[in-house]
Amino acid sequence: MSTEYVPTPEDRFSFGLWTVGWQGTDVFGTAVRPPMPAERAVRKLAELGAYGVNFHDNDVFDFSATEAERDERIAAFRKALAETGLVVTTATTNLFGHPIFKDGAFTANEREVRRFALAKTMRNLDLAAELGARTYIFWGGREGAESGAAKDVRAALDRYSEGLNVLCSYVQEKGYNLRFAIEPKPNEPRGDILLPSIGHALAFIGALEYPSMVGVNPEIGHEEMASLNYAHGIAQALWHGKLFHIDLNGQHGPRYDQDLRFGAGNVRGAFWVVDTLEAGGYDGPIHFDYKPPRTEDDRGVWESAAACMRNYLILRSKVRAFRSDPEVIAALAASRVGELSSPTLAAGETWRDVSAAEVDVAALGARGMGYERLDQLALEHLYGIR
Amino acid sequence: MSTEYVPTPEDRFSFGLWTVGWQGTDVFGTAVRPPMPAERAVRKLAELGAYGVNFHDNDVFDFSATEAERDERIAAFRKALAETGLVVTTATTNLFGHPIFKDGAFTANEREVRRFALAKTMRNLDLAAELGARTYIFWGGREGAESGAAKDVRAALDRYSEGLNVLCSYVQEKGYNLRFAIEPKPNEPRGDILLPSIGHALAFIGALEYPSMVGVNPEIGHEEMASLNYAHGIAQALWHGKLFHIDLNGQHGPRYDQDLRFGAGNVRGAFWVVDTLEAGGYDGPIHFDYKPPRTEDDRGVWESAAACMRNYLILRSKVRAFRSDPEVIAALAASRVGELSSPTLAAGETWRDVSAAEVDVAALGARGMGYERLDQLALEHLYGIR
Amino acid sequence: MSTEYVPTPEDRFSFGLWTVGWQGTDVFGTAVRPPMPAERAVRKLAELGAYGVNFHDNDVFDFSATEAERDERIAAFRKALAETGLVVTTATTNLFGHPIFKDGAFTANEREVRRFALAKTMRNLDLAAELGARTYIFWGGREGAESGAAKDVRAALDRYSEGLNVLCSYVQEKGYNLRFAIEPKPNEPRGDILLPSIGHALAFIGALEYPSMVGVNPEIGHEEMASLNYAHGIAQALWHGKLFHIDLNGQHGPRYDQDLRFGAGNVRGAFWVVDTLEAGGYDGPIHFDYKPPRTEDDRGVWESAAACMRNYLILRSKVRAFRSDPEVIAALAASRVGELSSPTLAAGETWRDVSAAEVDVAALGARGMGYERLDQLALEHLYGIR
Amino acid sequence: MSTEYVPTPEDRFSFGLWTVGWQGTDVFGTAVRPPMPAERAVRKLAELGAYGVNFHDNDVFDFSATEAERDERIAAFRKALAETGLVVTTATTNLFGHPIFKDGAFTANEREVRRFALAKTMRNLDLAAELGARTYIFWGGREGAESGAAKDVRAALDRYSEGLNVLCSYVQEKGYNLRFAIEPKPNEPRGDILLPSIGHALAFIGALEYPSMVGVNPEIGHEEMASLNYAHGIAQALWHGKLFHIDLNGQHGPRYDQDLRFGAGNVRGAFWVVDTLEAGGYDGPIHFDYKPPRTEDDRGVWESAAACMRNYLILRSKVRAFRSDPEVIAALAASRVGELSSPTLAAGETWRDVSAAEVDVAALGARGMGYERLDQLALEHLYGIR
Repeated sequence: MSTEYVPTPEDRFSFGLWTVGWQGTDVFGTAVRPPMPAERAVRKLAELGAYGVNFHDNDVFDFSATEAERDERIAAFRKALAETGLVVTTATTNLFGHPIFKDGAFTANEREVRRFALAKTMRNLDLAAELGARTYIFWGGREGAESGAAKDVRAALDRYSEGLNVLCSYVQEKGYNLRFAIEPKPNEPRGDILLPSIGHALAFIGALEYPSMVGVNPEIGHEEMASLNYAHGIAQALWHGKLFHIDLNGQHGPRYDQDLRFGAGNVRGAFWVVDTLEAGGYDGPIHFDYKPPRTEDDRGVWESAAACMRNYLILRSKVRAFRSDPEVIAALAASRVGELSSPTLAAGETWRDVSAAEVDVAALGARGMGYERLDQLALEHLYGIR
Repeated sequence: MSTEYVPTPEDRFSFGLWTVGWQGTDVFGTAVRPPMPAERAVRKLAELGAYGVNFHDNDVFDFSATEAERDERIAAFRKALAETGLVVTTATTNLFGHPIFKDGAFTANEREVRRFALAKTMRNLDLAAELGARTYIFWGGREGAESGAAKDVRAALDRYSEGLNVLCSYVQEKGYNLRFAIEPKPNEPRGDILLPSIGHALAFIGALEYPSMVGVNPEIGHEEMASLNYAHGIAQALWHGKLFHIDLNGQHGPRYDQDLRFGAGNVRGAFWVVDTLEAGGYDGPIHFDYKPPRTEDDRGVWESAAACMRNYLILRSKVRAFRSDPEVIAALAASRVGELSSPTLAAGETWRDVSAAEVDVAALGARGMGYERLDQLALEHLYGIR
Repeated sequence: MSTEYVPTPEDRFSFGLWTVGWQGTDVFGTAVRPPMPAERAVRKLAELGAYGVNFHDNDVFDFSATEAERDERIAAFRKALAETGLVVTTATTNLFGHPIFKDGAFTANEREVRRFALAKTMRNLDLAAELGARTYIFWGGREGAESGAAKDVRAALDRYSEGLNVLCSYVQEKGYNLRFAIEPKPNEPRGDILLPSIGHALAFIGALEYPSMVGVNPEIGHEEMASLNYAHGIAQALWHGKLFHIDLNGQHGPRYDQDLRFGAGNVRGAFWVVDTLEAGGYDGPIHFDYKPPRTEDDRGVWESAAACMRNYLILRSKVRAFRSDPEVIAALAASRVGELSSPTLAAGETWRDVSAAEVDVAALGARGMGYERLDQLALEHLYGIR
Repeated sequence: MSTEYVPTPEDRFSFGLWTVGWQGTDVFGTAVRPPMPAERAVRKLAELGAYGVNFHDNDVFDFSATEAERDERIAAFRKALAETGLVVTTATTNLFGHPIFKDGAFTANEREVRRFALAKTMRNLDLAAELGARTYIFWGGREGAESGAAKDVRAALDRYSEGLNVLCSYVQEKGYNLRFAIEPKPNEPRGDILLPSIGHALAFIGALEYPSMVGVNPEIGHEEMASLNYAHGIAQALWHGKLFHIDLNGQHGPRYDQDLRFGAGNVRGAFWVVDTLEAGGYDGPIHFDYKPPRTEDDRGVWESAAACMRNYLILRSKVRAFRSDPEVIAALAASRVGELSSPTLAAGETWRDVSAAEVDVAALGARGMGYERLDQLALEHLYGIR
């Protein structure tokens, strides 16, 4: 392989422990790989050039671990972090694996489940803060329903916001330097999940008690499962100042959650994702949330993890070349792309200054936008032939 | 047909003029029906029991109408309204049909197009106000892109909000009793449309200058094209106090925009839509935005329009029966649906009062939710056998 | 509940043992229900009025069972069958659960895996024949790929056909009274599965050595995951004389494989499925392949199983009422539906007898098809208001 | 732009006249470009390096053209062909644009419409033969339904096959050197179209009177609208010896028919499409069926057409480099891809020679397939960095 595109901690790549640690259990088959202790994931990711990790509580210790087991597992994790210099960028709670969460966590119909979910989260917030995480993720994978009467959606949103409000208070009162990021998903494992898209999560955040503490953590695959354009989605999140974290991976449109390695899905989309991130406004880690396919053994796990980072670097290089290519600059001008940054009303103008009569409708109707040329230039950068 | 389910103006059913007026032109074929003057649509809809209509400027008069033609067409429309008592509930602007809008209206790269779009909208706001409309719809069908570089999404959102802010000022300064409703759509006719879902629109509204003046007008088919649950979507919109208007129709999942008559799509979904609307919080007209299929002649047009209203009444009757059925009430209790309305923290409690230790994890994990029984009861009400 | 719609063995309802036996393990969570021995499933299904069962080898005994364990498990299964009178209608092989099948079975790149898959299938064909099954299903859930170079598709189809040809020989030489049915699926658990739709399987069967021994076993959800119309699909399979078996369940369009109970998905689609089956040509069992949602306990499992049968009976009653309703018969005539059964060329005519001049293009173009009225009548039968 | 990747007639690129000639009319907007006479399309395509064209009758002359107009239009088309040397590779009939075809052509309920469709097709078969076309396409865009009772699917398949059988006889009796290719599509403009995928069309062909005369013409976008893998689909068509023609373009999964230029859709998919075509077995023209977006003027039309060819050449070059890269060859071996070409049974073996005992289940289960490495190599060729 080329010697370029070698990741370093400066690139700020991070991985969920559950990504490389996925054993391959799915609805139709059993595990194909052995469990991976957190410390092993940390050491291998460090070797590959990663910067940080993200973890669920139960990625480090089992749901049913005793206190002693928990301590032992955390200690091993910490030791690996210390030895490798890998950073804990982010943490989250497993509120979906155990049967107690089969109807959700913060929006479970049963109040006891909701209380348990809060307690479990608070305990892991302590650990997250202790390990230096700066962002805490909320993926409400079981917050949803398969049928219409099962869930009172408005009550559920009340409870969802209540839960996040309580946890915001907790973080504030504890003095933790943590902010929250909601990860939307449209469906799977529930028939329909609450806060199904970036937009729904952004709107919901606006109704929380401490909206400034909460942003979004959008995942490529989750938006693409709903046929939504991820680059557009994160651009809107950036526009609202709410892109707190990202989950990069690959997906082939509306179907099961594929969690392909970054790059191995919608390639053209990935180019625009990196372009959007490079354009500025996002300062979190470049985080991958993927699953090494079930066909892979341990070697394949690390090859896929390395490839996620490598593909990001390849695309970053292409995006930079694209944006500095004089032909592209000319094509952007020909397509009047920059003109969209000019306000529609000039300084001091009001609606009174706008009249239909001022424009030549026929001429504007006939004028081509030149987008095919512009997009072809982008594609040729993607293809690496410019 | 049964004598029940006959619509009356009290049911507040309304139709877009463009629905029954659709001539059947699509990408692959020419018109199959003659143009329908607005006054004919009004008279026929009144006969069928509708309450109101919704119109684009160019549903009443052509884009290129002279002033005299425009006046004549508006007069004929008005006359029919007056004679039938049909109400103009809503109006909107055609900012997508003419070639000038091929790159969008409020987010067109070209500033002149954006100014023209504002002027065209203001002129129709005048007419809308004059005719008594209370809601003004914004469907940005051409606000989007087929390719990544063509549109600077953040600049586009700046311009989109600028446009709406200007128009809000216009309405306020004119003293019109109008509020705005944004209609989201994920794609078609553009590859990806800005504000693609209810959530994206709700979030965007929060960033406008006069957020209280602006809500959403979600369409069943538009959300279902993105595999999203429409009933969940409008429930979230209601939760935010933003369901200003609705577009009911039918769709079969992610594919082209089918605009089937209400009922003739996702039937189970339609039941929950009516249930959500009946649960309260929505006080606008029950508006249909569908297209009589191209296989239909004039008679089929009116049969399909009548069927939209009839299906709503049928479903409304079922939903009411479902909610008052003692077995359903018992099943809801068995599923602890009402318990979700109990706050997770009791009055006066804080996070300090919540502990993992308080719950019996094994017991809660093993307890079934009873949703299959509950959903089967709903289905049997839908089937009309209870 | 109503006393109508109570299933009896005459209705020939059957279930896969794996349906009611699903423990709820998915990609994101662990089992929520204990394992269900085959004999328990048999006894409960018999109580509910089922006629038969369908099984994978490893639904009865574990992949790694010893011979003694295998014998004990089969004996218990047999005993329950004998005591209840339940019939084994169908059987199949689990060629997807164990890690050895991670790259497929008959189309695994590794020849040894393919040989093992054949041997495992032959052993279960023996059991299937012994237990009286008449149809043997092939769902190639792992026959596919996530990436382009991994699988030589043409070689894979060679091996797939080789495998089925060998197994056809086996059945013939053993003298078993069994025919084969291929179950198509587009994706999940593989990125793309070979023979992704009814059509692909039908075409493939035409290229086998013993095409008359092989038909299809289409599943509602699998076709709907690809946005395909299941009723149309089984109608085409019937047209080819190849609808050997069916898998009924529920799905909400392109997303993960939901396996909802029959009726609780695309309701309008389900009506036409039953209509197509009732129209004749299918003589196999009415088989359900669904999964009781993870929210359910044991009671919910049986309620969902009972509801599958009940919903079929409800829809069957509606379909019969629809087809015998005089208004429907008149509407079908008005839509010239029966005219499609008249050959385009009259007896004795050839292309020489056909001329463009004979038809009145304008009149035919203007004539409406009356489909909205016809479909509304169907919908009202579905709603139970006619 | 690079001087490589310049198309020549030897590359055998062809375009439908309707592609560059699309005026931009869609459901929501009017034409944005003037009509393009066939002779202009021919001359411009020749300049760009194309080899051939494909036409519908009504791409050359209007549906309602007089004989004199028809002759004049054909003469102009012919003249341009003669002057440029462009070949007519393929032709087809417009059986979808006029209102007479609103319910289909060969499967219209009305017999008169079916007869008219046959006559219209025969007349254009004469022209196709005269102009030297070797393949005649059948895209049944209106052969379908929006509702269940409207179309008796089995009767429709009878009529569809009758129509093709009649036309096969016609071609045979006329002695034309033409074969037929059916183009499948799942939906749009009909709710569900008959023969919705490559597989359904292949199966149907097997039931025709002259199956050897009929193959398929699959379009990338049409298969991807149903989430199907196009490369897999054409591989199966090649396996059946039925890939008579291809329609290359771009699409972003299940949504409206986008008809993007080739390359500007699923880029990773396009790589495997070209790889499958290059692997051999297809000897038809490399045909593009796309639509220049409505944002483009005449210049954009030709830029997009040129880009289709250029992208094919770029991808062809990459695919060849991929297949000859020693690391790829080693990775293919490591993934045992070639082993799939070894029959599962050795020469002379029968089922008696296969035993489960011969394989080491645990070892095979644990062995990784190395697909992530292999796919990453492919991706790096696509990115142009190897």
